[in-house]
Amino acid sequence: MKIALTLAFTSLSLLASTLTTQATEAGLKPIPTSKAALMKLIDDPKNKITDLKTELGKKLYFDPRLSKSGLISCNTCHNLSEGGDDGVSAAIGHKWAMNPHHLNSPTVYNAVFFDAQFWDGRAKDLEEQAQGPIQAHPEMAATKEHVEATVNSMPEYVTAFEKAYGKDVKIDFVKVTDTIGLFERTLVTPSAYDDYLNGKENALTTKQKEGLKTFINKGCATCHTGISLGQSMNAFNVTATYKYQDVGDFKGDANGMVKVPTLRNITQTAPYFHNGKVWSLKEAIIEMGRIQLGTEISDKEATSIEEFLKALDGRKPALALPMLPASTATTPQSDMN
Amino acid sequence: MKIALTLAFTSLSLLASTLTTQATEAGLKPIPTSKAALMKLIDDPKNKITDLKTELGKKLYFDPRLSKSGLISCNTCHNLSEGGDDGVSAAIGHKWAMNPHHLNSPTVYNAVFFDAQFWDGRAKDLEEQAQGPIQAHPEMAATKEHVEATVNSMPEYVTAFEKAYGKDVKIDFVKVTDTIGLFERTLVTPSAYDDYLNGKENALTTKQKEGLKTFINKGCATCHTGISLGQSMNAFNVTATYKYQDVGDFKGDANGMVKVPTLRNITQTAPYFHNGKVWSLKEAIIEMGRIQLGTEISDKEATSIEEFLKALDGRKPALALPMLPASTATTPQSDMN
Repeated sequence: MKIALTLAFTSLSLLASTLTTQATEAGLKPIPTSKAALMKLIDDPKNKITDLKTELGKKLYFDPRLSKSGLISCNTCHNLSEGGDDGVSAAIGHKWAMNPHHLNSPTVYNAVFFDAQFWDGRAKDLEEQAQGPIQAHPEMAATKEHVEATVNSMPEYVTAFEKAYGKDVKIDFVKVTDTIGLFERTLVTPSAYDDYLNGKENALTTKQKEGLKTFINKGCATCHTGISLGQSMNAFNVTATYKYQDVGDFKGDANGMVKVPTLRNITQTAPYFHNGKVWSLKEAIIEMGRIQLGTEISDKEATSIEEFLKALDGRKPALALPMLPASTATTPQSDMN
Repeated sequence: MKIALTLAFTSLSLLASTLTTQATEAGLKPIPTSKAALMKLIDDPKNKITDLKTELGKKLYFDPRLSKSGLISCNTCHNLSEGGDDGVSAAIGHKWAMNPHHLNSPTVYNAVFFDAQFWDGRAKDLEEQAQGPIQAHPEMAATKEHVEATVNSMPEYVTAFEKAYGKDVKIDFVKVTDTIGLFERTLVTPSAYDDYLNGKENALTTKQKEGLKTFINKGCATCHTGISLGQSMNAFNVTATYKYQDVGDFKGDANGMVKVPTLRNITQTAPYFHNGKVWSLKEAIIEMGRIQLGTEISDKEATSIEEFLKALDGRKPALALPMLPASTATTPQSDMN
């Protein structure tokens, strides 16, 4: 009996170690457990993360007055109470405008692990990305001047910037968006999957381990790889007869490359794909196999992969709801047009 | 020297006691300091406040999936990070529709102290009020069925309702809005003004005390009274030549009565008046004197009153950002039309 148990234990350990090795070989990497190792990954040497900057960035992230209408904040489309996105097909912005390319809002959680932002990867980091939606007319529709006037009109913001960056800080558009980007760098959600890759054998259920194996064996990790379980830019098969290719005109970047979205918290970020036309995770898995991998993923395999993907539901940072400074006589008033 | 000091102290105390007496005589009341006394004021005997219900109500308050589009939550127009309102003239809702009567969103903070809700007082409490905007087409545009289907589609919500109300709970529209209303009952913000009326002589600055005296002497407390510094329903002078009477068609309720909005956190809730056409607090003070009191409030008096009103900036409850349950296959999808 004792021998049998020992044998069973050994073969289980072997299976586990084989699977983590397989995952590593497939390019999958966990979010590190040590804070120092994580900071090395997420910090920006040009603008070091501090508590004061993070708190300020959070306020700005939640402040709808950065938008022309005074109603739309970063959190409107990248809702931190949801999956870090908005749960709708295509982003809706100023005057209820839909994203002109019918593009779906990607999650901000773990976006720091990409070295290109936006579906076509045109921004190199979160700081550069943050400049886009604030100014885009179908999103927050603001000008740089509006943002600068708004933030500088509130003494509480000015003081917070001075405390975070020093008395000589110039609160311009780039400083505001850099601070928002810095806050976004901290939005990291380690999960049971990370615990498993970091050595906790029992962090995943047997079904989830099987799902991980299927995920790797079917080739999903070719594109959904690294810490992000995505990839900054990869070839995008636009020639395949994609089920919903008639929705939106997105064709990737100039080279037909597209950012492979993260699978972290994927159970919370429906609808799926760049045009947000697929609401079922299982359907998304099967469709990706067909189009991007040229392989059939059976219903059973898709169920197994889906089971693994549930292990990517992360532990979100606990955030206190920010309390924003009151507007003053010089704060630009909302403009609905 | 000692005598002089004692005399000065006595006269200061006398002034203070005179002022608090004057305030009490004018009908002004503080938010009580004792938790028991406060609970007696805010609790609903039919649906007692508990931590489990409050936490659940907070989630529902922040959940945009209760709206037809999936984008608008209670917090959109009654933003707890701002003054409990939206900072725009007239509320903007589904498909960017403006409130058809050009009505301004009132703050949810301290709304519990009113016994009528909405500008025309048509709802008797927060629970009844919560039913309105969710269903109003220019606001959240949802049906009761949509709300019920949404909440019941997420096991995490169902479990939370069962924990809060017992296993037999029926999660219908009224139960959802009752729970939102219950959460709103807890949104109370005691301020320096309350501390003063509760006996802390130094809670107000000399200027604020002078302002309070001016506030009472000019007659402001006739309508802005009680704990709310408002009044559930009062006569509304619609015949006066109101500066912006051409904006919106609001004429009060059937009897020309209107809810007198709270002055608590007033520095954070611009723009002012039922149609949100006045952005300057001082202008609002002077205009109210002219129209509602038929008296001239000088610039100096308005400055003094404004100084007092700053003491109504309250201490908001510390809220953790709620994390919402993930949608499931049966959760109604967003509908932008």
